[in-house]
Amino acid sequence: MKQNMTVRGDRLWDSLMDMAKIGATEKGGSCRLALTDEDKEGRDLFIKWCEEAGCSIKIDKMGNIFARREGKNPDLPAVMTGSHLDTQPTGGKFDGVYGVLAGLEVLRALNDYEITTEHPVEVAVWTNEEGSRFAPSMVSSAVFAGAYELEYGLSRADVNGVTMGEELKRIGYDGPEEVGGRDLKAFFEAHIEQGPKLEFQEKTIGVVTDVNGLRWYEITVRGQEAHAGPTPMNRRKDALVAASKMVQEVNRIGFENDPDACATVGMLDCRPNSRNTIPGEVFFTVDFRHPSDEVLTKMDGQLREFCEQVAREGGFELEFEQIMYTAPIKFDEACVDAVRKGAIEAGYSHMDIVSGAGHDACYLSRVAPTGMVFVPCENGISHNEEEAATPEDLAAGCHVLLHAMLDQAGVVTN
Amino acid sequence: MKQNMTVRGDRLWDSLMDMAKIGATEKGGSCRLALTDEDKEGRDLFIKWCEEAGCSIKIDKMGNIFARREGKNPDLPAVMTGSHLDTQPTGGKFDGVYGVLAGLEVLRALNDYEITTEHPVEVAVWTNEEGSRFAPSMVSSAVFAGAYELEYGLSRADVNGVTMGEELKRIGYDGPEEVGGRDLKAFFEAHIEQGPKLEFQEKTIGVVTDVNGLRWYEITVRGQEAHAGPTPMNRRKDALVAASKMVQEVNRIGFENDPDACATVGMLDCRPNSRNTIPGEVFFTVDFRHPSDEVLTKMDGQLREFCEQVAREGGFELEFEQIMYTAPIKFDEACVDAVRKGAIEAGYSHMDIVSGAGHDACYLSRVAPTGMVFVPCENGISHNEEEAATPEDLAAGCHVLLHAMLDQAGVVTN
Repeated sequence: MKQNMTVRGDRLWDSLMDMAKIGATEKGGSCRLALTDEDKEGRDLFIKWCEEAGCSIKIDKMGNIFARREGKNPDLPAVMTGSHLDTQPTGGKFDGVYGVLAGLEVLRALNDYEITTEHPVEVAVWTNEEGSRFAPSMVSSAVFAGAYELEYGLSRADVNGVTMGEELKRIGYDGPEEVGGRDLKAFFEAHIEQGPKLEFQEKTIGVVTDVNGLRWYEITVRGQEAHAGPTPMNRRKDALVAASKMVQEVNRIGFENDPDACATVGMLDCRPNSRNTIPGEVFFTVDFRHPSDEVLTKMDGQLREFCEQVAREGGFELEFEQIMYTAPIKFDEACVDAVRKGAIEAGYSHMDIVSGAGHDACYLSRVAPTGMVFVPCENGISHNEEEAATPEDLAAGCHVLLHAMLDQAGVVTN
Repeated sequence: MKQNMTVRGDRLWDSLMDMAKIGATEKGGSCRLALTDEDKEGRDLFIKWCEEAGCSIKIDKMGNIFARREGKNPDLPAVMTGSHLDTQPTGGKFDGVYGVLAGLEVLRALNDYEITTEHPVEVAVWTNEEGSRFAPSMVSSAVFAGAYELEYGLSRADVNGVTMGEELKRIGYDGPEEVGGRDLKAFFEAHIEQGPKLEFQEKTIGVVTDVNGLRWYEITVRGQEAHAGPTPMNRRKDALVAASKMVQEVNRIGFENDPDACATVGMLDCRPNSRNTIPGEVFFTVDFRHPSDEVLTKMDGQLREFCEQVAREGGFELEFEQIMYTAPIKFDEACVDAVRKGAIEAGYSHMDIVSGAGHDACYLSRVAPTGMVFVPCENGISHNEEEAATPEDLAAGCHVLLHAMLDQAGVVTN
């Protein structure tokens, strides 16, 4: 019975398409920024669907939603899945939403087969994962996991100074439940890969074993602003020439520590940014990622040494600051195995994969055994209205999620 | 008599300091953007001074001002000097203003010594040289020289859509005279160097022989925007990595064609400029300068070839456009000699120099034999409130200007 159980891909797809209508953009994406009217509408629809599926709903003080399907023994810790319903400003239909609605589809499939699980099963919606409206990202799963204080979470403000606490109240999602402190048997999150590896290797399922550690830097190079016409080459301190060497070095460090390293300069501001003025100051950011903390430390050393050398040799002033660090994560072995077994038993092509991006599951892994399921997305593109995934792959990921959760929740045999 | 004639450096300095009070900035510079109330106030003061010196005033339809001290023969073409009174938004006290007030001091000195010149002597104020408020720069000397139509000049608009024609009318400087079409014996312009060469070589006078030719480019590199986390190094098309190679090459080309070449990337915009997104598009500008057209053409070829190669090898889309070209200028031999002779006879240290920046004199050289006198400015800094020059150097330049003008205008011996 359990082995033949599966999800309904068509129903999952229809739910995804219905949810995507809320905040739909002209180019086929969605814009449901956290705690806007659109986000409220998405949350209301999710709760309606869950109640129709017979679940009870709880909402905590961060607006995190928990839809619960009771198990045989209500006192046992829940097996939870979930992700987020908020999107980037020009976001896609799948990032986050898939993980929530795959969870809903698991609930519906359990109902279809009239399954009783030993442990309760819950589907969570985490508030403001994207961080587009309120920085930082993943703030509500972080409060749940005890990484931030509740007060910190509620006081996060958008560019207009409106706080999450105020917006939660306004849309009626300032729930009564305390945040976190709950005993979980396991947490799973299904997500589109947001990268090209599965597609490139033609695999349907990514068994996520690790999440990259990350170091973020802010670097400022100061030289001497001067008129581009009358200033001879050998008397210049061109901050952009120095910074562009550093951009090259960031890229070189990425390749040297390949295949697992990622190294990116995403933001660069040139000042005063005038066509006939030699740049006096350049600010840029660096994003380093790697699953090994040791390698991340090596990359850090390489970058520091290079930047200091360029500054010293050219007489530049250098500000070099690491502004963020998150340690690499190894997911729980039993949860990872449950995902891999789900893929194998269904006969899906699969591979172990390291998540390059952060997810709510990263914070959940601090308080619960955790695993993730990735499915391919077209050209690896996400955070983009063109984000795309096939109904077949999405259904496959949902099937694997169902069986991984059953593995942990246990089925009551009649 | 003529040989012993000199200018009064104290009077020149006082005039400069008085003018600098109009639009004075907190950091010791001046802000008199073209055709603002401050510009009008500066013009009014200049005209008052010239009238006190016994000059007649004419104003043309571009607002260019001509203060004329009559010669023995009013039908002979005038020997003219001049520059501009408008400044950068955070401009200094000397750029442009010095050339105008050095001209005024020449008029005053001629009065002191009761000199009659053969040719009339005129001091010009050219409208909107800086181009900070209305692009392009040097637009009114360009109309005077026939490089632009009057209609084009008057229709130049600032960021609020207000045109030069409207502003000339508002401040009462829409004069009755036709623009240009006048026969000039010679034109001289005194100016701070705006570069470090005179200071570095410890020379008081720069005898300007040439003005660099200039090529301006706008270059756009398009790759593939993607998430910085999950996108492997070998599957990236990072537009910033490509553009930073091009920045390095611009700098290399500058050094290869040194000592006379200047090569600058002054403006660079990275898009979407987000710390965790691989840059999909980078726009940047290139400024190439050299006194030889042949070398400028070579530099152009080197840059094009390199950019095309980077684009081809990395699969980038490249837009490469030259948006401006001005040919190198060789100033008139007799005018250059007159300046050099003025420096030699006064015993000032001097050197021949190429102007890196454009000046009103560049357009004037199309319609009159032209020369320029440079004096040092501190650290070569200009377009900056900290712009500085010594009273002694400014007086020396003014003395050289006086004698160069007398050389061309001729003195009536009693």
